[in-house]
Amino acid sequence: MPGTPLSSPPTRFAYLGPEGTFAEAALSTVVAPSEGARYPQPSVAAALAAVRSGDADAALVPLENSVEGSVPATMDGLADGALLVIGREVFLPVTMALVSRPGVALSDVRSLASHPHALAQSARWLSANLPGVSPLPATSTAAAAAAVAAGEFDAAVCAPIAAQRYGLATLVDDIADHAGAVTRFVLVAPPGELPPPTGNDKTSLVAVVGDRTGALLELLGEFAVRGISLTRIESRPTRERLGVYSFSLDCEGHIADARVGEALAALHRVCDDVRFLGSYPRADGRENKPVPATAGDPAFAEAAQWLGAIRGTTPS
Amino acid sequence: MPGTPLSSPPTRFAYLGPEGTFAEAALSTVVAPSEGARYPQPSVAAALAAVRSGDADAALVPLENSVEGSVPATMDGLADGALLVIGREVFLPVTMALVSRPGVALSDVRSLASHPHALAQSARWLSANLPGVSPLPATSTAAAAAAVAAGEFDAAVCAPIAAQRYGLATLVDDIADHAGAVTRFVLVAPPGELPPPTGNDKTSLVAVVGDRTGALLELLGEFAVRGISLTRIESRPTRERLGVYSFSLDCEGHIADARVGEALAALHRVCDDVRFLGSYPRADGRENKPVPATAGDPAFAEAAQWLGAIRGTTPS
Amino acid sequence: MPGTPLSSPPTRFAYLGPEGTFAEAALSTVVAPSEGARYPQPSVAAALAAVRSGDADAALVPLENSVEGSVPATMDGLADGALLVIGREVFLPVTMALVSRPGVALSDVRSLASHPHALAQSARWLSANLPGVSPLPATSTAAAAAAVAAGEFDAAVCAPIAAQRYGLATLVDDIADHAGAVTRFVLVAPPGELPPPTGNDKTSLVAVVGDRTGALLELLGEFAVRGISLTRIESRPTRERLGVYSFSLDCEGHIADARVGEALAALHRVCDDVRFLGSYPRADGRENKPVPATAGDPAFAEAAQWLGAIRGTTPS
Amino acid sequence: MPGTPLSSPPTRFAYLGPEGTFAEAALSTVVAPSEGARYPQPSVAAALAAVRSGDADAALVPLENSVEGSVPATMDGLADGALLVIGREVFLPVTMALVSRPGVALSDVRSLASHPHALAQSARWLSANLPGVSPLPATSTAAAAAAVAAGEFDAAVCAPIAAQRYGLATLVDDIADHAGAVTRFVLVAPPGELPPPTGNDKTSLVAVVGDRTGALLELLGEFAVRGISLTRIESRPTRERLGVYSFSLDCEGHIADARVGEALAALHRVCDDVRFLGSYPRADGRENKPVPATAGDPAFAEAAQWLGAIRGTTPS
Repeated sequence: MPGTPLSSPPTRFAYLGPEGTFAEAALSTVVAPSEGARYPQPSVAAALAAVRSGDADAALVPLENSVEGSVPATMDGLADGALLVIGREVFLPVTMALVSRPGVALSDVRSLASHPHALAQSARWLSANLPGVSPLPATSTAAAAAAVAAGEFDAAVCAPIAAQRYGLATLVDDIADHAGAVTRFVLVAPPGELPPPTGNDKTSLVAVVGDRTGALLELLGEFAVRGISLTRIESRPTRERLGVYSFSLDCEGHIADARVGEALAALHRVCDDVRFLGSYPRADGRENKPVPATAGDPAFAEAAQWLGAIRGTTPS
Repeated sequence: MPGTPLSSPPTRFAYLGPEGTFAEAALSTVVAPSEGARYPQPSVAAALAAVRSGDADAALVPLENSVEGSVPATMDGLADGALLVIGREVFLPVTMALVSRPGVALSDVRSLASHPHALAQSARWLSANLPGVSPLPATSTAAAAAAVAAGEFDAAVCAPIAAQRYGLATLVDDIADHAGAVTRFVLVAPPGELPPPTGNDKTSLVAVVGDRTGALLELLGEFAVRGISLTRIESRPTRERLGVYSFSLDCEGHIADARVGEALAALHRVCDDVRFLGSYPRADGRENKPVPATAGDPAFAEAAQWLGAIRGTTPS
Repeated sequence: MPGTPLSSPPTRFAYLGPEGTFAEAALSTVVAPSEGARYPQPSVAAALAAVRSGDADAALVPLENSVEGSVPATMDGLADGALLVIGREVFLPVTMALVSRPGVALSDVRSLASHPHALAQSARWLSANLPGVSPLPATSTAAAAAAVAAGEFDAAVCAPIAAQRYGLATLVDDIADHAGAVTRFVLVAPPGELPPPTGNDKTSLVAVVGDRTGALLELLGEFAVRGISLTRIESRPTRERLGVYSFSLDCEGHIADARVGEALAALHRVCDDVRFLGSYPRADGRENKPVPATAGDPAFAEAAQWLGAIRGTTPS
Repeated sequence: MPGTPLSSPPTRFAYLGPEGTFAEAALSTVVAPSEGARYPQPSVAAALAAVRSGDADAALVPLENSVEGSVPATMDGLADGALLVIGREVFLPVTMALVSRPGVALSDVRSLASHPHALAQSARWLSANLPGVSPLPATSTAAAAAAVAAGEFDAAVCAPIAAQRYGLATLVDDIADHAGAVTRFVLVAPPGELPPPTGNDKTSLVAVVGDRTGALLELLGEFAVRGISLTRIESRPTRERLGVYSFSLDCEGHIADARVGEALAALHRVCDDVRFLGSYPRADGRENKPVPATAGDPAFAEAAQWLGAIRGTTPS
């Protein structure tokens, strides 16, 4: 990676490598190859570290997967260490292709490799269609594809992008047992200018609360009284401090929205700790629930003016 | 009443008359006779109207009584019509004295008068100590005292102040059946400068909400999430609109406090209507509950600064 | 009153007298004169005491008035002392009639009397239509009517029933300043069989809670989580114990309803004290809000069966 | 596996294999080798299926890991399909040992294999202490140990139990980067007799709610109003139905406790679906929070008796 950090927009992108993984496919939907340099990293931690050290401007990392669940390395990597903020989310269908060298037929396949997760997610298809082949583990789906290209195995289970990258042919397009699996990636960068509100945004945060009965209820109450819907909540153990819980949350709305800002300020007051992880356009193809008229920015503005007049700080 | 309204401080005080009632006694604790002119009014409505018309600067009216409950004429008189704001509350012990002309002994009493409320509140004492005397109704305790001075009756049940005012002697000091009865009066005036926070204040308001299950719970939730205690709540029927409820509330704290201001602004957003009725020093001899550190002004200020930094509107 | 208490149904009724008051009119809507003996009492306390002593089977007393607000003597009389339970509520329009002896015309009226409350509630009409007449106080509207019959005054402001009872003629039908005023009476008796649920019932109770921030919110939460609407709530000071609040509540539903029973049992656990004051048919001409399917008796029964099966106490 | 299912207690245990994994170590803490037959399974799904088909009496599967987070295969495997109930939880410290054939020294290690998760969790140690060795993936830590025993690699990162089982020597005891990592396993079986309450129990469930703002808050309110603490909460996407959320929860207490039973019955009413996943002794070495007196079984029993007396169904 070049040593000189560039100013915005980001042009140097770290991602969970190696080349040819789903993360690279997700990154391609965010930025064209001509618009930025891409630096595959061996782990989520390494990708985040590259941004924190200034070696990269942004990192694309997986946050959750509809089959495998949340990605603790990303959750914890964002919750701790120097602050990184999500500026964009990307949903990528997880299409597992069976690939081989050009000219190889399905009936020719005698050996097969992939990352254990990919093997697990296509186990049913493999045992039905390649019953005599024992799948072998690889460190990544892309590494398996590379090994196929190098002639070490006959076939690999990998992302379609890996076939292109390693000059392989696709034997079967989509062999995942669960059709419709999706991975959610996030593009994170050091704090800076926030993406402007689009009217269909999400906000992510981590809140740490003491282990009192009702503490979570109080936390959620701060959203509910302001008409804000949550789209994800997870309790995360905090290894360091016994009896302290950490919640990872996504809510609808942008921190520039009055209701979201007031809710986060309230959490900042009542929680042991709150880390704002970004406001960014919602990208899962769904629409936020309609904001009640009583919770919209005009209602907040009007109420602030009313209060100011009463307090005598504003001419009434 | 003179026609020229004076600027603050108020010097022309309307009160629930006639002279010699508990309201005048309460007013005397607020302002010395030399500091203001006093105008007794025939009813609470008349006292409030005098302020609204500009004929008086302020009015002292009863809000609730520990025996008789709240005073609907005051509740409704403040909830409707031009806005009047409470600047002060006064708690007056309701001491019912038995008075007569000088020289008359208890054994000489053959006739007795007072306002029906006062007769009701001393009924047990009267039937035990003056069993042969049928109490007669008067339009006010002071009117009864005046009638005793005029020789129409032998004795009256009235406020101690009435004895002084009409030159009567006190036969028995305190004949109320419930010792310790207290009336809470409020001094109301047109909106203007609010009394500054003292650290032990109350705020009064009226909130109108639709008749939905949980509407009151939501209303109270706006106080609870901000650590604010209520000291009084009453549902009042709204005659005008079927299915709409009005709540009369007192809470701890001053509208200048961040938590109270944010709560009232929230009510302004979510309720059908909110009327702010004033913030004023608590005068019932009790202390507000300690404000949690998470709800104090410094916590709000720090949270606002944190939010501003995140939003990029404040240098971080 | 006869000394032998009869078994149910009640046949001896105490009420807030004297004869010819609104309370007697309300009682007439509950029981025909031929079906029970009526005993007017000098005060609410006396009416309740008559039931507690066994001298009467039931008492009809006013609970709240749309103009005057709640009746503290009834509120407190039911909250303290031996338990009495509401079996019925009656709403009576408060029609203030101007009455005089037959043959007297409005223009003949030179003197006028009534209870101060009635005078207050028709003050505007009186000053507009009888400007030269100074109203005089009486101990009750019925006493004023009796005095008119006796020739002491020319006219009285009283309930229509008083005109009938004292052989008077009605000069003007309804002179109340606020049209549509209504008084809510309740028929109370010692605990016994409850009125069966009708599908449109109310339940009344008094709950005493410690003076903690959020105590009321918790109390209301017990209703809200079970889908129960409140129709009235009032905080009442508890004179005896500083820092303890008493709430007088009416909710929709009957204690035989699963949701109401569970809510009251919950209050019994979490409050310092709960007094059940009865479940009875709603009589204000309005319908309870529809009960959500999740809060109806079938839902509770089905959930109890599900729980029993899981716990292994019921064959599944 | 033998074909004849035995009655309780379970004697045939499926677990996430292969032999020598952490799951087998966890199983050893639950049942001695002499007390049951153990059947390693290739996946969580297979282990659960073995119980559902009757081929095994119970299965021991991982539920969450303090480093890797929750195990979606177990979460989803318990949430869907025929009901299985947790009867026991086991917490196993995740100690990563570096093992090799007897006689091999750390300085002799030239090749190394393990499951990618284990490699990831000891990556820092490996790069510091075996900088010249490229770790190779294996399908499980136990498979890596077996491969070392077979001479395919010099060393493996695996559970201590694998060293015993494959006759290997431990080079370094604990090389995990995060000391103190713990995996929580659960022993699941078809519904039957529940473990009796111990006073320090947990209850697990899955609740499915519609996608309304505040739906989660209502769900949590059912626990909070009954004084029940949650120890874990996770939102899980429901792939099948758009706009429907599934929450996986653990709370303190046993379903035989009145408060827990009433809370679960309430969820059964208000949620789209609730699946009870068991009540079992808490095994993480921590104590449940003290139950408030108002939420204990005696308080519920007393309240039920009070309610019964009022309703007239119980002699009072």
